[in-house]
Amino acid sequence: MLIHSAAQLLTLSGGPQRGRALGTLGVIENGAALIRDEKIVAVGSTDELRAAYPDEPSLDTSGCVVMPGFVDPHTHVIWGGDRAAEFEMRLEGKHYLDILAAGGGILSTVRATRTASIETLIAQTRPRLLRMFATGTTTAEAKTGYGLQTATELRLLKALLTLDNEGPLELAITFLGAHAIPPEYKDDPQGYTDLVSKTMLPILSQWWQTHAPRLPFPFVDVFCENKAFNLAQSRRILEKAKALGFPLKIHADEFDNIGGASLAVELEAVSADHLVRTSQVDIAALGKSETVAVSLPCTPFGLAERDYTPAQEILDAGGILALATDCNPGTAWCESMQFAIALACRYLKLTPAQAIAAATINAAHAIRRANVIGSLEPGKQADLLVLSVPDYRHLGYRFGTNLVKQVVKCGRVYSVDVGYYRTA
Amino acid sequence: MLIHSAAQLLTLSGGPQRGRALGTLGVIENGAALIRDEKIVAVGSTDELRAAYPDEPSLDTSGCVVMPGFVDPHTHVIWGGDRAAEFEMRLEGKHYLDILAAGGGILSTVRATRTASIETLIAQTRPRLLRMFATGTTTAEAKTGYGLQTATELRLLKALLTLDNEGPLELAITFLGAHAIPPEYKDDPQGYTDLVSKTMLPILSQWWQTHAPRLPFPFVDVFCENKAFNLAQSRRILEKAKALGFPLKIHADEFDNIGGASLAVELEAVSADHLVRTSQVDIAALGKSETVAVSLPCTPFGLAERDYTPAQEILDAGGILALATDCNPGTAWCESMQFAIALACRYLKLTPAQAIAAATINAAHAIRRANVIGSLEPGKQADLLVLSVPDYRHLGYRFGTNLVKQVVKCGRVYSVDVGYYRTA
Repeated sequence: MLIHSAAQLLTLSGGPQRGRALGTLGVIENGAALIRDEKIVAVGSTDELRAAYPDEPSLDTSGCVVMPGFVDPHTHVIWGGDRAAEFEMRLEGKHYLDILAAGGGILSTVRATRTASIETLIAQTRPRLLRMFATGTTTAEAKTGYGLQTATELRLLKALLTLDNEGPLELAITFLGAHAIPPEYKDDPQGYTDLVSKTMLPILSQWWQTHAPRLPFPFVDVFCENKAFNLAQSRRILEKAKALGFPLKIHADEFDNIGGASLAVELEAVSADHLVRTSQVDIAALGKSETVAVSLPCTPFGLAERDYTPAQEILDAGGILALATDCNPGTAWCESMQFAIALACRYLKLTPAQAIAAATINAAHAIRRANVIGSLEPGKQADLLVLSVPDYRHLGYRFGTNLVKQVVKCGRVYSVDVGYYRTA
Repeated sequence: MLIHSAAQLLTLSGGPQRGRALGTLGVIENGAALIRDEKIVAVGSTDELRAAYPDEPSLDTSGCVVMPGFVDPHTHVIWGGDRAAEFEMRLEGKHYLDILAAGGGILSTVRATRTASIETLIAQTRPRLLRMFATGTTTAEAKTGYGLQTATELRLLKALLTLDNEGPLELAITFLGAHAIPPEYKDDPQGYTDLVSKTMLPILSQWWQTHAPRLPFPFVDVFCENKAFNLAQSRRILEKAKALGFPLKIHADEFDNIGGASLAVELEAVSADHLVRTSQVDIAALGKSETVAVSLPCTPFGLAERDYTPAQEILDAGGILALATDCNPGTAWCESMQFAIALACRYLKLTPAQAIAAATINAAHAIRRANVIGSLEPGKQADLLVLSVPDYRHLGYRFGTNLVKQVVKCGRVYSVDVGYYRTA
């Protein structure tokens, strides 16, 4: 199939974009891409590709931007229940402790998740994945972490493997058994750290080889914060995971700077995520590393906080910056990478071009898939978007809406409806 | 038609909600509404209405919220061109004056609008109205104001009447000839003030009676700011408009507090809009008046500014607060009232219930239509939404997405697609 006549085709070719190189879109005007089966075969101008492939079935994208599908490298998209009532309580001025006492906070989601069947979890997660896909995310990372006990964490993994298999949205799975200290260990965080590192991780290794033998190992992630796992506990879990062969991720500096980002660099983690309170030392370490700095602007927005990731400093230090939604039921129930881009332009001061690169090729690098997705280059998977706008800068500029017209996933074309039709 | 089994049906009955009374939703669990032709006939519990109307065709809304359609009481939705390039220049740190010199700013939109045919203006505006309708706005105010010369302002009016007639989104039209000083009057703002008040307004009166004899007069609005029309100029235009029988609106206190809100109260304007820099004196005046305080949170968000409407002070003073998008190409290209609600919860500290009332019954009051729309009450127009969530608090809590499943406009049901389907 020849996708042709794009007002702008963004290739994002050349691999992850480090530091101030961020924002190199590789714009081809009147662009085209040849797709066969699941792969991109050629990318160029419409004139060139039409001449070279005159008999190919075609998809006209006149007046539209064609670009790689968004990669969302940080989500907690699977959970039970919701926290709409808690959101209202916060706005009414209720204190966080009162909300906890009323059964709110992350532990309410843990409770609802533990009591949900796998069928319920899948049924509740599917519409969130649909919203992601319809807003242009073709691959998303998805974490466990609302189980906090072996059986429930494995149920979440099973549900995620099922949803990944169902498609069309592709998932990169992360084990986040170390998301919070569960209530039964509230006076013994060390005991829970032991449970994760000594029991859960070895079980996970075996389980994965049995249930997903053809897939690469999942990521192992830790919530490294004063309120969750301290630096020593985080190190123990991540070192054990590394020894078992798991690639690593870390939640660092969302609320406090306790050194998680430097730990990620030291352990060669694939990414360090959140990065709001990150120190100069940690920024410098990230800047010299291969660890991707993943900013989650929907979270400060969701909480109406003023501080966001110091993205300009990370770029100045030479860091590899990516964007994600952090989609979760507590702080940021947002499925749209387009909205993460709109926030990044305003609060990280990224240009639309920089935000797009951070949401595609660099985001693919943050889940170790930049070799197959994140750009439009021959040999890569045919994951791409047709936007209903003639200029990529409409991303960021416009907000609260969905600019995606079509999603192509593994060479298959899906039309996205932004409209309505009369039914009665 | 019997709309039944709603998890929550929000009536918003009882008229505009002043001050701390804001947020009275009138929730009916397992609610139902009977619709005949274009009107609501009855509202109550599903059991009651099913017993009373056993043979009625039905629309099952199990697991959903049913509520009045959003009313967006402040938009600049008709314009030519776009300002995506200017958005990028601002992020690259270009100064506002450099952007103006490069052809940016409001005057670039004026240029593009003046040179656009009515067919072009209609074709470019239609998809914006579609996005509004698909995100749940059933009636929107729409202003002229990118013409700034008689012929173009009348062309915009004609285009808006055409679009209103086309439907399904219903428009309440506003004449904003006094949106900015046009370039040909840049050294003579007084001359342009004279042109608006002495020439345009009398022509408008005649024109409207010829072209829209069955519709009420449009609103007349003025941009009362240091950069636009000062207080004396605003007064001259509004007093002339009032003498001619036009209902009034005003843009006040977006950037500077120069007394526009108190002028609105004095002249009994229907609404005063923006209200970011509003003084205590002005807030007190609004609080004792019938002039609706319309907050436009998408605009500070669009500009990444920190200050929003002092909504809590307006409520404390007894004001009637409404929400709108301000949809426009410069500061806030956003069609979604759901996003305005998400911002209002975070930056105006409204609860979801308050934000919903501000976006429905109070917004209807801000365009003088609270007698026909804005609530679900017998005799009112059948404009309502079916949301794909079981609890109204998902509005505000969730962002970057569209929770509308069906829109009912004048009794007709439109399905909204949030998904995708495979086409190739």
